[in-house]
Amino acid sequence: MIEELTRAEVEELLRERTVGRIGCHADGVTYVVPVIYAYDGEAVYVASVEGQKVRMMRTNPHVCFEIDEHEPGAWRSVVAQARYEELAGPEAERALALLTERFAGAGRRRRPESGGRATVCFRLVLGETTGRAVRPFASEPR
Amino acid sequence: MIEELTRAEVEELLRERTVGRIGCHADGVTYVVPVIYAYDGEAVYVASVEGQKVRMMRTNPHVCFEIDEHEPGAWRSVVAQARYEELAGPEAERALALLTERFAGAGRRRRPESGGRATVCFRLVLGETTGRAVRPFASEPR
Repeated sequence: MIEELTRAEVEELLRERTVGRIGCHADGVTYVVPVIYAYDGEAVYVASVEGQKVRMMRTNPHVCFEIDEHEPGAWRSVVAQARYEELAGPEAERALALLTERFAGAGRRRRPESGGRATVCFRLVLGETTGRAVRPFASEPR
Repeated sequence: MIEELTRAEVEELLRERTVGRIGCHADGVTYVVPVIYAYDGEAVYVASVEGQKVRMMRTNPHVCFEIDEHEPGAWRSVVAQARYEELAGPEAERALALLTERFAGAGRRRRPESGGRATVCFRLVLGETTGRAVRPFASEPR
């Protein structure tokens, strides 16, 4: 039985998780890619490199952001419609600060090398957001 | 530094993981949703219920399928372009058998109740597939 998460549960999950997926679409192609993010209550912030997802989101900024978590027989997920906004200057600095703060204490975590590609900082401003959960072990197996 | 996975590594990850995400697009909306799947070397098989993702994939069968795994500072992911095919009769039975076999031994796992909605079995036939990995702790932090 699928249940809706409350707004508080959605917020908690967005703050708790560190990996989400962006779904974007351009020129007839849909693309899903995992990202590490930080969340500030309104948007998720990502530091990435030039590449397919950035090109697609520049073409079509209407994207989807998804997070989920699982254990055997149970899961929770959040799916949000979102708007891509590329960041520069002080806004990009703030995004990097949020990400650094979010991942401080994660041991030896460092940003991977970008392989010479330019860093692109962006945020996804979350719009319509739904959270769902399946509680395990329904009474009526089929 | 992002590295490409070999075809063997991609196959291994597809067989090993149990949760993937479908990205679909219809009527200007992109939607990403997690699913539990089984993989037979050509397609991933899902048993779902009538709902938004099924409606969207019937409208536009060109979808994206994504899996990932993470540990601090490292991740692997597979992203595939895929074609939605709804299953009926013996094909649906085979999909359910694959899923049952895949999840046998997962303890008390049972299918959750569908809340009265019809079960929809489908497969995503995988086309162009890429695997990527970030190995941790690059030598040049920034």
